[in-house]
Amino acid sequence: MATEIKKVLHMNEGSDETSYAKSSYIQKHVLSLTKAIKENAIREIYCKELPTTLCMADLGCSSAVHNTLNVMIDLINTVEKAARLAGKRGQEYQVYLNDLPGNDFNLIFRSLACFEDDLKKKVGVNYGHCFVHGVPGCFYGRLFPSNHLHFVHSSYGLHWLSQIPEGIEDNENNIYIARTSPPHVLKAYSDQFMKDFTSFLRCRSQEVVNGGMMIITVLGRKSLKLYSKQACYMWDLLAMALNDMLLQGLIEEEKLHTFNVPQYPPSETELRLLVEKEGSFTFNQAQVSYVNWEPMQNYNNSNKVSGHYDFFKCMRSVVEPLIKSHFGEFILEELFLRYWKKIQVSMENEKNVFINVTLSLTRKV
Amino acid sequence: MATEIKKVLHMNEGSDETSYAKSSYIQKHVLSLTKAIKENAIREIYCKELPTTLCMADLGCSSAVHNTLNVMIDLINTVEKAARLAGKRGQEYQVYLNDLPGNDFNLIFRSLACFEDDLKKKVGVNYGHCFVHGVPGCFYGRLFPSNHLHFVHSSYGLHWLSQIPEGIEDNENNIYIARTSPPHVLKAYSDQFMKDFTSFLRCRSQEVVNGGMMIITVLGRKSLKLYSKQACYMWDLLAMALNDMLLQGLIEEEKLHTFNVPQYPPSETELRLLVEKEGSFTFNQAQVSYVNWEPMQNYNNSNKVSGHYDFFKCMRSVVEPLIKSHFGEFILEELFLRYWKKIQVSMENEKNVFINVTLSLTRKV
Repeated sequence: MATEIKKVLHMNEGSDETSYAKSSYIQKHVLSLTKAIKENAIREIYCKELPTTLCMADLGCSSAVHNTLNVMIDLINTVEKAARLAGKRGQEYQVYLNDLPGNDFNLIFRSLACFEDDLKKKVGVNYGHCFVHGVPGCFYGRLFPSNHLHFVHSSYGLHWLSQIPEGIEDNENNIYIARTSPPHVLKAYSDQFMKDFTSFLRCRSQEVVNGGMMIITVLGRKSLKLYSKQACYMWDLLAMALNDMLLQGLIEEEKLHTFNVPQYPPSETELRLLVEKEGSFTFNQAQVSYVNWEPMQNYNNSNKVSGHYDFFKCMRSVVEPLIKSHFGEFILEELFLRYWKKIQVSMENEKNVFINVTLSLTRKV
Repeated sequence: MATEIKKVLHMNEGSDETSYAKSSYIQKHVLSLTKAIKENAIREIYCKELPTTLCMADLGCSSAVHNTLNVMIDLINTVEKAARLAGKRGQEYQVYLNDLPGNDFNLIFRSLACFEDDLKKKVGVNYGHCFVHGVPGCFYGRLFPSNHLHFVHSSYGLHWLSQIPEGIEDNENNIYIARTSPPHVLKAYSDQFMKDFTSFLRCRSQEVVNGGMMIITVLGRKSLKLYSKQACYMWDLLAMALNDMLLQGLIEEEKLHTFNVPQYPPSETELRLLVEKEGSFTFNQAQVSYVNWEPMQNYNNSNKVSGHYDFFKCMRSVVEPLIKSHFGEFILEELFLRYWKKIQVSMENEKNVFINVTLSLTRKV
């Protein structure tokens, strides 16, 4: 992974209002939509292997501690039920939480006492041991010993590229795949994703035991066309805010031209083809789900503005470190004020959704 | 481990001048003294097992990143030499760094890029993979899956108790094992150590593979008597500074009476007996070493004051979190000024040493 990206690609730290830990309701909602597919997978691998220690990893766990740890609790609960049916006692779990070294691991580690309490509440006190270990590193490289993991989970991590695609200087005032991006910019984005996703599969193929399973969710798209409003609109709005500031001389043109978001929204078909081409994993199924920009609790009440603000905070907690490192800290307040206004107008007038693609893969024997 | 101790028992965070990372020259010196015994042990277990992935753990790694990571580099270098002789290639290493959840793991994780560079410089680029994982938790409980570790290292961690011994309220104006401590205070300290060290051995006996090895270094004592100047003098000086402040009404008597340092300096004989009694490990050897309070580089030059100040900083970085949590932040500057003066006077007039006891243990088959 490019050193620059490694340093800035982390969500907003800490646990205050602007932090990712407090703002990531969309990521939380996505996790609830993929609950069944994850639990089916871990049950399947557990019953097939009945390992003394079940090793599982959450790749790109970020600092949204409760999101990640609740997923782990649900997975362990599923296995405990299966273990009881199989008459096994004292099951051990090794849970690896991975993200880039810039992630706020201190926050995660200091929440583990609560995690243990919650785990006991949910599954009872009779499970064996659950060891939670932190894995700092980039999931496009090796992270674990060979033949080690039974189950891999990754949600909302793999649409982040390892670097800004090369040769996209003439994407100009766009900051992402946009309606006006030249074709070679689109190709550069898709090539970079292909390369990264293939590296990911290749590394995991070394680390996952034969028959082991992976459930991966990415922010993706439905349409064949690479530009789709669902995948790109939140970046279009940010680009508009940046362009307004450019027109008013508040940022430099050069700076805007060199800013591009290292993300890519793959379609189900693309993912399937890449999995088949790499060859180490069987493609079991894909599931496409939708998440409204609006938080769930705002669907049926009149407090729309707070819902719009929640979406804005969620986006800000994700993108702020990228903006800060490229443009400098001084533009943050002005830019995010403008971005917030554009989000508000858009959300008042239209219903926007994100599209998620979830894959279930099995390591070929 | 007592919740309170878990929260405050960590060295000073960060990487500035008062941090443990910058001040821990004594711990570094101790590591250099135990280099041979560690390297012999890891060579022995490696050659016996030739594991695909060699799993090793540093327990109580603290945030003195370079100390810990340099030990790991030396150990890997030793194994790589043995692997070459055995004609093995692509050896994988799983390196676990453990400390309490309050430790500054972010600092460690953000130093791993340098670690990889240093590792390549030292052992060449042909080693397989080295995966460094963080393990937040107390080593008096379970931390790893069963039968998992080949090699365990712990330096300057196990003399810290899991809690302040119970029933030592009448240790009064002492803050540790002192010349004037009543006999039952000494017994409470030694009972707590016995309990903790036995828990440590019991947990590790589950986690270390048969034939696996442990090298453990603690701050200890030579004399049979529990009070020995070498083990207790640095705390005597701190107690004097606190008592001066008590006399001047700067701290409350009640506060001083309830402050005790949760540390214990075992002798070689005590350690041997505890290992034999617990029964899971063979006691191979013990090595006793001495470390001057004065930094090495000050032995032969005239800049003694900076050496005295280095010792003071080292002690402060260790004890400040304990003081702060018990007495409050407001006494820190005043107390440490007084402590510094006492250290200075002492170091000008006498040569003080720490005594370290290093054990080599093998998990019985």
